Amino acid sequence: MDLYDKVIELSKRRGFLWNSFEIYGGAAGFYDYGPYGATLKRCVENIWRDFFVVQEGFFEIESPTIGIEDIFVASGHVSGFSDPLTECLKCGEAFRADHLINNIVSGADGLLSDELERLIKLHHIRCPECGGNLDKVYDFNLMFNTSIGSGAGRKAYLRPETAQGMFVDFQRLLRFYREKLPFGATQIGKAYRNEISPRQGVLRLREFTQAEAEIFIDPVDKTHPNFKEVAEKKLALYPASVQEEGGEPVAMRLDEAVSNGIIAHECIAYYINLTCEFLVACGIDPNRLRLRQHRNDEMAHYAADCWDAEVYMDRFGWVEVVGIADRTDYDLKAHMKMSQAQLTVFKEYKTAQKKDVVKIKPNMAYIGPTFKNKAKEVINALQNISPGDIKNGTAIVDVNGEAITLGSEAFLIERRVEEIRGENIVPHVIEPSFGIDRIIYAILEHSYFEEMVEDETRVVLKLPMKIAPVKVAVLPLLTRDELIEPSNRIVSMLKKIGIQTVFDDSGTIGRRYRRNDEIGTPYAVTIDYDTLKDETVTIRDRDTMKQVRVSIKGIDLKISNALTQVPLL
Amino acid sequence: MDLYDKVIELSKRRGFLWNSFEIYGGAAGFYDYGPYGATLKRCVENIWRDFFVVQEGFFEIESPTIGIEDIFVASGHVSGFSDPLTECLKCGEAFRADHLINNIVSGADGLLSDELERLIKLHHIRCPECGGNLDKVYDFNLMFNTSIGSGAGRKAYLRPETAQGMFVDFQRLLRFYREKLPFGATQIGKAYRNEISPRQGVLRLREFTQAEAEIFIDPVDKTHPNFKEVAEKKLALYPASVQEEGGEPVAMRLDEAVSNGIIAHECIAYYINLTCEFLVACGIDPNRLRLRQHRNDEMAHYAADCWDAEVYMDRFGWVEVVGIADRTDYDLKAHMKMSQAQLTVFKEYKTAQKKDVVKIKPNMAYIGPTFKNKAKEVINALQNISPGDIKNGTAIVDVNGEAITLGSEAFLIERRVEEIRGENIVPHVIEPSFGIDRIIYAILEHSYFEEMVEDETRVVLKLPMKIAPVKVAVLPLLTRDELIEPSNRIVSMLKKIGIQTVFDDSGTIGRRYRRNDEIGTPYAVTIDYDTLKDETVTIRDRDTMKQVRVSIKGIDLKISNALTQVPLL
Repeated sequence: MDLYDKVIELSKRRGFLWNSFEIYGGAAGFYDYGPYGATLKRCVENIWRDFFVVQEGFFEIESPTIGIEDIFVASGHVSGFSDPLTECLKCGEAFRADHLINNIVSGADGLLSDELERLIKLHHIRCPECGGNLDKVYDFNLMFNTSIGSGAGRKAYLRPETAQGMFVDFQRLLRFYREKLPFGATQIGKAYRNEISPRQGVLRLREFTQAEAEIFIDPVDKTHPNFKEVAEKKLALYPASVQEEGGEPVAMRLDEAVSNGIIAHECIAYYINLTCEFLVACGIDPNRLRLRQHRNDEMAHYAADCWDAEVYMDRFGWVEVVGIADRTDYDLKAHMKMSQAQLTVFKEYKTAQKKDVVKIKPNMAYIGPTFKNKAKEVINALQNISPGDIKNGTAIVDVNGEAITLGSEAFLIERRVEEIRGENIVPHVIEPSFGIDRIIYAILEHSYFEEMVEDETRVVLKLPMKIAPVKVAVLPLLTRDELIEPSNRIVSMLKKIGIQTVFDDSGTIGRRYRRNDEIGTPYAVTIDYDTLKDETVTIRDRDTMKQVRVSIKGIDLKISNALTQVPLL
Repeated sequence: MDLYDKVIELSKRRGFLWNSFEIYGGAAGFYDYGPYGATLKRCVENIWRDFFVVQEGFFEIESPTIGIEDIFVASGHVSGFSDPLTECLKCGEAFRADHLINNIVSGADGLLSDELERLIKLHHIRCPECGGNLDKVYDFNLMFNTSIGSGAGRKAYLRPETAQGMFVDFQRLLRFYREKLPFGATQIGKAYRNEISPRQGVLRLREFTQAEAEIFIDPVDKTHPNFKEVAEKKLALYPASVQEEGGEPVAMRLDEAVSNGIIAHECIAYYINLTCEFLVACGIDPNRLRLRQHRNDEMAHYAADCWDAEVYMDRFGWVEVVGIADRTDYDLKAHMKMSQAQLTVFKEYKTAQKKDVVKIKPNMAYIGPTFKNKAKEVINALQNISPGDIKNGTAIVDVNGEAITLGSEAFLIERRVEEIRGENIVPHVIEPSFGIDRIIYAILEHSYFEEMVEDETRVVLKLPMKIAPVKVAVLPLLTRDELIEPSNRIVSMLKKIGIQTVFDDSGTIGRRYRRNDEIGTPYAVTIDYDTLKDETVTIRDRDTMKQVRVSIKGIDLKISNALTQVPLL
């Protein structure tokens, strides 16, 4: 068993994760979070909220997971969100054509269907399941589709990302934030990708949870007000240029990375740092975390810069868990075009600008009598020329192909100074986008330890306290009424102040410690016969396995402090 | 404008709720939660978790929103989750046939398609939109469908309820809870109903959020260990019998309701009370809350009892927001049948039962030589008879149509006593099922107040503190640097301890108070020129509008206490 198998085995056995629909044989790409998994997921989501909602002030919104077609035509998902697919003519199994080729020769990424088909023939690639011949390669759209209403209904899709919900709501959000940049909105919710034969367990899901922030900023000011607070942080950066030269990631200060032009600007750098702080707070090992810049050949054509937070996983190597991109004005412009809505901000100039305005006013009193039934066309033509077209007081206009020369008697040149207070601009968007499910798997893997204790292997999940699904296990030494009474009392005390506590009296005390080590419970409280004498209990620390004897009185506050501030042992 | 319109207008203007996909013309049955709405929704969900997850100990799980077909064939949704639909032959608009009829004469609920079609003809009902003729009435399935994988794919549906995810996971949950009843699992998540032309705004959504608990109990023990704590509570109950007699709801003690057989058992009564406590904690007016029992003609055939928590809404009258049902073993049995999985619990008897077991053992040494090539068939036949078939020591068996008489030399009768420790039983399920979106609308409506203050109407949302999307507004009297500095300091202090705080310096102070009254912010902190002298600020209470002057030092703890314990003013 490699580490992935061990973590998944523990996850299934202890109730973190399991395959969905097991009693019906399951379906690839769908996983359930069990009781501990869902609790841990809530904790991760709440930490994300602490960073992005409470600290950064980007309010959360919630838009539907079903979206109407227009949205995804505008976003480009209807035409471009696809993978190259080929099916076996014999057994009908579907495969990603590029993956089949990459298994034999590298370089299939991003090739068009025709080219992939040619390579499959060239390398005599056949169905890996049954050896049958493979069919044509075609682009398979990865959105799940459905329809709203009866009959043929209205075409709709399950959203492939939460982001579009924020773009579509831009006008409402702009008003909410009182028409001023920068502002941001966030969303945590389900997104969907109808993957072609997903084979990477929890890392490639068809239904998954995203946490995304869309931060709308001034296109000509990509500084960040709090950048100075993080400027000296050193992170493992893997710039595109270094990748192209075959180099390794380098620890680099963020201010240096920005001033050397490695990271495009402060705003991206700030969110790269915030992302790392979040991941480490959740229990990702900082030594198995790096920031990899997209190379030119993988970056979206509209993006100004894009970095992936990658986490090292034992079986899969470096895996993307977060993307931080400067998407420029691509999305808002796409929705403006499709919806005809005005997705702009009025940007006031610091000082109102004066502008010389020159206008040509036709002299009706002259043109009317002179040109008679052509007069209207002459007037139109005059109004369409610019002041620069007037040479020596004379304008030549084109009226139905006839060049007519007009002297200064035909028009007046009016000059005035206008005050311009600002202009409507389309904001740029910075998007940190988190794949919550992958992060959760990475947390489990990075927290998984096997330690030798008295010739036995102890398996322990060293989860951060904020992440542990159970904070305290309350364990009567034996299942006796006299020990259960104080146990229940402690459970009530802890639950009352909102601490996730479980009572466990099943099996030997050693077995219960092991069980709680495996689910990462930071503290175990044991009630024994001394408790009945002096109202004291022991608290055992998950990581050090040390024990301390404390009074029941005040144990709630003691544990609460230990969980949020200073560890108890 | 009625109260619904007022609440929705405020919700849109202030960022609680708005129609989804507005820039693309919207789609009926889809609403977005804006920044304040989503924050409030999080608060409601977290209070629900406090009640059902932390207090009751029913862990949350998270299963996919997409489900494979088998699940919904088993649950009955594929065959039975439908509404009667008729379409206009002229304009194509779809309508619920029963609603069209009910608009004219009552009594169309629950009728079959044929009967509805007959009534439409009888009453000459035509399209309410264009007056066209209406087409045949047919059953329209309300599940959104999609498919998983390429080509025709695997048929799948968006779940119509979160409940099935818990039933399908029964075996895993049983193991998690160490094979002992009672236990429960909960889920908060999206569910979907492809409604035929929804016309009731936020009350009838095609995509909505459910919070459901599935509590698995012993079918022969429906008491609840904590019932005694709630037995004396009086609630507004509206039993089926009273409805049928045309009576009104009555305030009744829960223990009386159970002992009089009005509520089927303690377990339902306990969760009825918990539901009410939750709703009131969220801000539902207890005077606009009642518990209505399903009448026989509306209760599902398998249910042992079912109560709806109904909330009074100005426009819609009494609206169901929660259902609390005893679903018996219906769901587990349905999934057992479909999946062939064993969805049972081994229930140990208090004392092991003794059982006399009588077996017939063929005497091979006699049968072999006597019946030769027929011996095997004779032996089989003997093993299939029961001891009762033996009369006077003689058994008559049927071997290929031939009746053979066997004397006692042909067999031995073996008697022994077996000890039976228990049996496999299918648990019953108690299901409290909450419609979170309706609850949120009801909270907004019940919190909405208009008060005359100095000849002006003050609109204020008197939300419970736990529910208010913004807990504190920090308002510098004027937008001046010297006032903004202490304001920012207070914002940081409050955010640091996790209090949702906004800084607001836009508009007059009066306007900012009004804005915060409208979104229900419990406390507003104002920084003025006295602050610069003595480091004090005023705190204004939303409900009383009283103000108190306090030091900046310690303001974080003061407000934190006020939010969670004793109001400040």
